[in-house]
Amino acid sequence: MQTDDRGYRRYWDEERETRDPRERERLILERIRHQLDYVYAELPFYKRHYDAQGFKPEHVSTLEDFTTKVPVITKKMLVADQAEHPPYGSYAGAADAAGIARIQGSSGTSGKPTFYCVSRTDWDRSADLAALTMWAMGARPSDIAQIGFPFSLFFGGWGVLQGLEKIGCAVFPVGIIPSERHLELMQHIGSTIFSGTPSYCQHLIGVAEQMNIDLRKLPVQRLIVGGEPGGSLPGIRDVITEAWGASVHDSGSTSEMYPFTTNVTANPEEGVLLINDEVFTEVVDRDDANTPIPLGERGAVVYTHLWRESQPMIRFWAGDETYMVYDGPTSCGRTYPRLPEGILGRLDDMLIIRGANIYPSAVEAVLRECPGMGAEFEIFIDRKDALDEMVVRAELTEAAARSTASNAEEREGLRREAEGRLARNLQIRIPVELLEPGTLPPTVFKARRVVDQRTAAPAPPA
Amino acid sequence: MQTDDRGYRRYWDEERETRDPRERERLILERIRHQLDYVYAELPFYKRHYDAQGFKPEHVSTLEDFTTKVPVITKKMLVADQAEHPPYGSYAGAADAAGIARIQGSSGTSGKPTFYCVSRTDWDRSADLAALTMWAMGARPSDIAQIGFPFSLFFGGWGVLQGLEKIGCAVFPVGIIPSERHLELMQHIGSTIFSGTPSYCQHLIGVAEQMNIDLRKLPVQRLIVGGEPGGSLPGIRDVITEAWGASVHDSGSTSEMYPFTTNVTANPEEGVLLINDEVFTEVVDRDDANTPIPLGERGAVVYTHLWRESQPMIRFWAGDETYMVYDGPTSCGRTYPRLPEGILGRLDDMLIIRGANIYPSAVEAVLRECPGMGAEFEIFIDRKDALDEMVVRAELTEAAARSTASNAEEREGLRREAEGRLARNLQIRIPVELLEPGTLPPTVFKARRVVDQRTAAPAPPA
Repeated sequence: MQTDDRGYRRYWDEERETRDPRERERLILERIRHQLDYVYAELPFYKRHYDAQGFKPEHVSTLEDFTTKVPVITKKMLVADQAEHPPYGSYAGAADAAGIARIQGSSGTSGKPTFYCVSRTDWDRSADLAALTMWAMGARPSDIAQIGFPFSLFFGGWGVLQGLEKIGCAVFPVGIIPSERHLELMQHIGSTIFSGTPSYCQHLIGVAEQMNIDLRKLPVQRLIVGGEPGGSLPGIRDVITEAWGASVHDSGSTSEMYPFTTNVTANPEEGVLLINDEVFTEVVDRDDANTPIPLGERGAVVYTHLWRESQPMIRFWAGDETYMVYDGPTSCGRTYPRLPEGILGRLDDMLIIRGANIYPSAVEAVLRECPGMGAEFEIFIDRKDALDEMVVRAELTEAAARSTASNAEEREGLRREAEGRLARNLQIRIPVELLEPGTLPPTVFKARRVVDQRTAAPAPPA
Repeated sequence: MQTDDRGYRRYWDEERETRDPRERERLILERIRHQLDYVYAELPFYKRHYDAQGFKPEHVSTLEDFTTKVPVITKKMLVADQAEHPPYGSYAGAADAAGIARIQGSSGTSGKPTFYCVSRTDWDRSADLAALTMWAMGARPSDIAQIGFPFSLFFGGWGVLQGLEKIGCAVFPVGIIPSERHLELMQHIGSTIFSGTPSYCQHLIGVAEQMNIDLRKLPVQRLIVGGEPGGSLPGIRDVITEAWGASVHDSGSTSEMYPFTTNVTANPEEGVLLINDEVFTEVVDRDDANTPIPLGERGAVVYTHLWRESQPMIRFWAGDETYMVYDGPTSCGRTYPRLPEGILGRLDDMLIIRGANIYPSAVEAVLRECPGMGAEFEIFIDRKDALDEMVVRAELTEAAARSTASNAEEREGLRREAEGRLARNLQIRIPVELLEPGTLPPTVFKARRVVDQRTAAPAPPA
């Protein structure tokens, strides 16, 4: 058995994680055919949808058939089905209470929340899968893992907790508390892992600075991030890595795809591994979900549960953009394909400004490489004389704000540097406005970066 | 095997729960001697304390020896020891990260929090014990359990979660959200169990009234309450039972005593059972912890972990008052002693007003039986001409406020009724002031009932 530098075995499930990809594809196809038969026979939601589209499970005999012939499902369809078949939809499967282990919900900011139910079998299997992925990120029984995700209606923190518990880490499930307290607890308890969103890890950099805490001297060695894009974008990841002196491990897909840690970072330089023998992941044409695209090209991600019996997602259109590569086993010896920069952003979040397509996460990745910029920024969009105008309003770091307080020229230099880098990377000129630290609301969970005045609701009729 | 009315077995562990009390006492004594030897040999905190008091484990050969000879430990001693031996104190035992399964903390409102660490062995054992107690309260795999305790640094919600998960309920761990949402979720998901503090369950009665929701028509059949006294005081329990049409199951001791659900209600009429083969519980003289008192008399509660290896509490003085009885097996067939009214209150919370000893929970129990009184009230204490004055300021229910809005006489009747009942029950005249509903801040977690102007901090010297 191979061991790591702490004397633990290298893999949670060596045979599975280092399997020959062709052999794995055979197993994946087997599970796909099983799942298609199951959902068509047992789950009315799928039966109706497939019948309406003229699709039958027997149309699939290869993975290519799967991509080109199986219609996708969308969040909108799930919401509509749950409204008709409350509370879990007609795609729920074992949805009597005795079969359900766990119920969670989405925030439902735009109306009713979506509800997730996980059967006992799926829940137990997910614990093992979450342990496999946390292990791939380097979590070991000797770690103390402080979790900064909320434990609530939302699914977020629960998956991380489940995996770390299964591994046997000392779990310290703190949730959302004042940032100063989080840092004090890391110091006092000696936490070796911290888990939260990438934007929160960035926010803590500024908080530590104000408290005169050197994050690099904290015992934290690994940051398990997720819940939003960014953790695999080099510009963002490098800033966090540097400030914390800790490796940044991106993970997670969407609540629908529980066990959602199947997107997981072992070696940050290589991006996110796709544990595709648990959740089969495709990247397809963003305008046609049945059109495959070549490896390396950007497209829309589509996920499939290979094992879930409760609310299984078969070709779920997540609305996220990414690109996938496979170029042999990664440095850790795992044979999974990967997303070199993780999830790039939500297709819906893409801003179209004067004809250019811009993701907020791309703006952020550039800003992270600009000297003097703090954790918080916003992308402010307005319409002026029928033209869309975008301004990036970025906070300075405490240090940069101090050192340029009486040196307007130096400050202007920082501003120009940021504008120059944005223009070079995004091929569009975006004005930058600098803000004092603390001007914008601090990020404590998922970041909200875009203020779009174009979509502000018109005044109601009098 | 005996089954209950839903076809499940009656007990989680029949042999243990129905054991002959004398046989159980023999086992308890065996464990006590084991624990005394262990803590004296392995945990410096106990060694120092026992040496200073001239106590040696071999002094104990009967349960009476245990009560009369073993010095108690207090919260203050634990806090001091943790300050000297951070983070878990010299009473922690297996406190390296690889041995710890779980870390939690107290709020530490008055300074540094206390930290709790639970070893893997203790954690796994606690899951089984929590399942035993949740089963005694009637939780079954077919239940949908909505949890309204927070999941955070504090230990509160985690014990309930662990027990319900082990049983195999459908767990819906929602935490603290707006009260209207909690009620909507119960309705939508069909939750059959709700868990929260008794004061929060009372608060929800008023919220439901405002929303025109009849709690009795909700699917909730059991309320698992704890975290504060009250759930076993008939006045409080009956109001909640009546309004919800659900049985009220008090449970829980203190964070130090994890697995803290060893105080548990099977049949609400009989009060709280003490699972004393897990946590041995004594009620002793409030002025001398080594003086036993007769069954049925009020005194101070002292707890002992019979199984914990990590941070075991041996004769922990919880600072709570109660009385214990044993009069044969309870109606459920269990052979444990019980606290007929649960924990009555904290010894420290006892108010001394003009010589009378008054617990806030006693005031509350009386108010719950007074017509027209809503969920929220406060006990306002001030010093007037060197005399302590207590006023109870109680909100009316929505209905009572409406129906007496233009009938001052009727409202005065309600006020007098409350004053009369308080005087009869507490042997002291306490003026009552009525408030409109919504005047006081709503209780969403533990209730804060006492506003003591006598203890307000004096202005700092200039």
